[in-house]
Amino acid sequence: MDAPILSQADIDFLLHDWLKVEELTKREKFADHSRETFDAMLEVSRSIAETHFRPHYRKSDTHEPTFDGHTVSIIDEVAPALESFADTGLLAAAFGEEHGGINLPFVVHRACFAWLQAANISTAAYPMLTMGNANLILAHGTPEQIATYVEPELEGRFFGTMCLSEPHAGSSLADVKTRAVPDSAGAYRLSGQKMWISGGEHELSENIVHLVLARAEGSPAGVKGLSLFIVPKYLVGADGSLGEHNDVTLSGLNHKMGYRGTTNTLLNFGEGTHTPGGKAGAVGYLVGEVNRGLQYMFHMMNEARVGVGAGAAALGMTGYLQSLDYARVRPQGRPVGAKDPEAPQVMLTEHADVRRMLLAQKAYAEGAMALCLYAAKLVDEADTAGGADAANAALLLDVLTPIVKSWPSQYGPIANDLAIQVLGGSGYTRDYDVEQFYRDNRLNPIHEGTHGIQAQDLIGRKVIMSGGSGLALLADTIGDAIAAAGEEFADFAASLQARLDRLVEVTANVWSTADPETALANATPYLEAAGHIVVAWIWLDTARAAAESGSSLAPGKKAAAEYFFTYELPRVDAMLDLVDGRSKFLVDLDPAVL
Amino acid sequence: MDAPILSQADIDFLLHDWLKVEELTKREKFADHSRETFDAMLEVSRSIAETHFRPHYRKSDTHEPTFDGHTVSIIDEVAPALESFADTGLLAAAFGEEHGGINLPFVVHRACFAWLQAANISTAAYPMLTMGNANLILAHGTPEQIATYVEPELEGRFFGTMCLSEPHAGSSLADVKTRAVPDSAGAYRLSGQKMWISGGEHELSENIVHLVLARAEGSPAGVKGLSLFIVPKYLVGADGSLGEHNDVTLSGLNHKMGYRGTTNTLLNFGEGTHTPGGKAGAVGYLVGEVNRGLQYMFHMMNEARVGVGAGAAALGMTGYLQSLDYARVRPQGRPVGAKDPEAPQVMLTEHADVRRMLLAQKAYAEGAMALCLYAAKLVDEADTAGGADAANAALLLDVLTPIVKSWPSQYGPIANDLAIQVLGGSGYTRDYDVEQFYRDNRLNPIHEGTHGIQAQDLIGRKVIMSGGSGLALLADTIGDAIAAAGEEFADFAASLQARLDRLVEVTANVWSTADPETALANATPYLEAAGHIVVAWIWLDTARAAAESGSSLAPGKKAAAEYFFTYELPRVDAMLDLVDGRSKFLVDLDPAVL
Repeated sequence: MDAPILSQADIDFLLHDWLKVEELTKREKFADHSRETFDAMLEVSRSIAETHFRPHYRKSDTHEPTFDGHTVSIIDEVAPALESFADTGLLAAAFGEEHGGINLPFVVHRACFAWLQAANISTAAYPMLTMGNANLILAHGTPEQIATYVEPELEGRFFGTMCLSEPHAGSSLADVKTRAVPDSAGAYRLSGQKMWISGGEHELSENIVHLVLARAEGSPAGVKGLSLFIVPKYLVGADGSLGEHNDVTLSGLNHKMGYRGTTNTLLNFGEGTHTPGGKAGAVGYLVGEVNRGLQYMFHMMNEARVGVGAGAAALGMTGYLQSLDYARVRPQGRPVGAKDPEAPQVMLTEHADVRRMLLAQKAYAEGAMALCLYAAKLVDEADTAGGADAANAALLLDVLTPIVKSWPSQYGPIANDLAIQVLGGSGYTRDYDVEQFYRDNRLNPIHEGTHGIQAQDLIGRKVIMSGGSGLALLADTIGDAIAAAGEEFADFAASLQARLDRLVEVTANVWSTADPETALANATPYLEAAGHIVVAWIWLDTARAAAESGSSLAPGKKAAAEYFFTYELPRVDAMLDLVDGRSKFLVDLDPAVL
Repeated sequence: MDAPILSQADIDFLLHDWLKVEELTKREKFADHSRETFDAMLEVSRSIAETHFRPHYRKSDTHEPTFDGHTVSIIDEVAPALESFADTGLLAAAFGEEHGGINLPFVVHRACFAWLQAANISTAAYPMLTMGNANLILAHGTPEQIATYVEPELEGRFFGTMCLSEPHAGSSLADVKTRAVPDSAGAYRLSGQKMWISGGEHELSENIVHLVLARAEGSPAGVKGLSLFIVPKYLVGADGSLGEHNDVTLSGLNHKMGYRGTTNTLLNFGEGTHTPGGKAGAVGYLVGEVNRGLQYMFHMMNEARVGVGAGAAALGMTGYLQSLDYARVRPQGRPVGAKDPEAPQVMLTEHADVRRMLLAQKAYAEGAMALCLYAAKLVDEADTAGGADAANAALLLDVLTPIVKSWPSQYGPIANDLAIQVLGGSGYTRDYDVEQFYRDNRLNPIHEGTHGIQAQDLIGRKVIMSGGSGLALLADTIGDAIAAAGEEFADFAASLQARLDRLVEVTANVWSTADPETALANATPYLEAAGHIVVAWIWLDTARAAAESGSSLAPGKKAAAEYFFTYELPRVDAMLDLVDGRSKFLVDLDPAVL
């Protein structure tokens, strides 16, 4: 199949016709940029996605990383792909010049990175983790920590990880048990086990910089006793030279259904396999202050969750394009009512039900990507708009984040499921990529906070924080889009307004007794209803923008919006009625009857 | 994990407390049977599922069949498993004594077979295909054909296939091109290619009996020109001895995402690799009359589709039981509002959202299995009830079949998706079976008529056949259950009645202009709405039966019914409104905008 990996036309439309990202160049931070520099970075991304990432997509799956007890082996194609990513400047691009970057706006960088995620999500995971890691150390580390770890990371020489989960503590970070004991050298010694650590061991980089959530000696139980530590695989000398192997040991690789190219590991810290400085215990360096580890992690969480959402959306889009390519050239059957069996078969795209499956994919994938880029632009606004605008952008990003993470992670896989269905038996074989998209994408509702955790975050925290001002701001923002819709989209606007009003009403109702157990009893249907309303807003606004700008994509955007408003949005009514019922059925259920 | 493969308590409840299958023993055909013989067969099924089918479930996936250009190799565990299936009498059980069987009612046999499907769906596929093949030859073949092919099939010596699809003709059987030319010996010679043929080549049996849809010389184009032929891999002599290799060649194996243990093949007929009787061309024997092949196939289709639905339901159930087992013993987090981080973590089953995911699985899987067993009992009723009762059972089975096939095939995979989610990261690894259930189950909406084909069958044919008497009968049948619901379930009954009335109304509306293009424009939402209404009926009636019989399962049945009526059934309103809108948006869509 020669289907494109992504639609650059769609990305361009979203960035320019809709989000008008060129206006960001008026901000001092982005003053060196222009449409041309943005286009150039996108073109580089497309190019390396095509030449270095997609070609080994299937091989990453069939030849997953192996561990012989000493060394993790990864197929040869991954390292050069990641080198090309660093060499073209994409790795450092969103960072400042002092770190070798070019201050590319986060929203443009996200669009660039979507090319790599669409091409090969598991190879793309290494730089994604590294950039997040570097970002966190930059925000909270010392100048020395930045020089020692961030600079080599942004040169592509060190890779990074995030070590949160433990075997007994997945979603429940309050139960992290890894201990950190102050060491004579002013550092700490860590001991414990970390589970589900992506990129936790490999030979792709000179060093691996683990960011480890651990409990310093004397710290309280729960999330308030967690601190964040830098634990490098190899200790780094003052001159940047690599020294002893730290006491971090790979206990084993996890073997997954998809996303196989990314090593996923169980790591032992401080088990005494190595004895840096002559003694056991993993040497770790505190980031920032003690007991503020989870806050630092959460500080980066919004961006990481936008990244997960965008990856899910990118897989949805690439699957859509492959199934569309197939459907355009695959003859099968005849129109309803056609009687002549000797007439030639028509293409799959001629069947109403195939159109439904294609349009649904388009609505899910393009809608999800638009939402993620919108959220990414909020990161830039919060960073550079200043004053109340920046504060509003940060607040809106906060309230949207659980949806930006979860909606694409739910509907990206559903889009991939439809891509398989369009291809029929062929889609179920490993001769086509759609089955791998489906398997890879299935991780997204699990990692970076499960679907259920996002639901609790939205209804339990985000819509009530600051006296509900986040939800009010979201409603105002959607209200602006409704007001701008114009006559062409008046029906959609009215339909959206009704659901938005209902969402606000139901939110107030479920919290009317201020009882979290009641409010959270149906958190997931609430999340899913809110997600559909948010994506309906995105569709209304992108369809309007396409029409106004005279984009050649306008008819397709309008069709996808019509699909979403006709086939999808009405589903929220039953969900919101359910939530409004405030049933504690699930809370009161005796699990013995299961 | 030591989770049970299926819940025998649930199967017993469905067969006895609900369907009262023991009453079938009053019929002459089943007069030798009793509760004891039924129980014995179910116990044998459970036993061989545990000892011969489940143990190689994972290995079937990691070591899929291979083809070296000459021979297909399958892991050693499959042949003994299938021998045990035949040796215990399960293979022939549903057939008459003259064929070595015991006339086990179809409904009981389906329940037995669900054990094997739940344990190892891809190993179970070989006997499922063979039984269907034997059934068809029995119904339409000559005594000689029955003696030559059916008898060895029911002894487990010959296996069978169904060869319908071709590379260019998947759903569109009108376009079958395989040719059959009369041969001097009174037989035919076939030439053509058949695609997606499960069990098409292997060394598991002495011979393989292909049932091939082909176009006899001089037959018209389209489905009316298709005839059915027996094409054995090895020709069989009058004394039953195996003779020459027929001109049937394996062109290649398909490599699938799941269901890997079942060989799936591209077969060449008549390419001249073998020359039986000294000349090229696959020797085939006409079944019944020329040009009636598709009718014969359809005659068996209801039972085959019930089998696919039951397999999807069985995978849903086994995944539910595994995730329930995990959730009962996996500590994670604390209840909403719990403040003390030093309190021990609670089990996953204590969280409302996990309960939602478990109860949804239970509602999908047990509901789907109940529906399939209900349909299976209709096969027995149509076969033995006589008179108007038999005709009604056949009519109801006809109208229900697209739902019996598609609803479990849609919601079985959704249940498996939830099972993964309950296990979190662990569910995404190959250390647990749930990811394999998910991959295996994904085939079911594709084969035996895709989801979209079922939708067209329901709204385009089944609900309007015989002047709509099928739909009227379904409505009456559901009405009987509503009338019987009693006070305890009065709310559910009223809720169901309203949706049933709406379904009938919408059906009339979409056909009010007698324009198939309009009626079929939203066939899939119609199918899915009808499916949810039918399963709501099943839940109402099983919950009532559980309460009335004093079953120990009654509280669980009631909880699952409450889940279904609260969280699921209300979704149909938006679907039916959509269908009632009779939008031709998808029909009129210009595919260029996709």
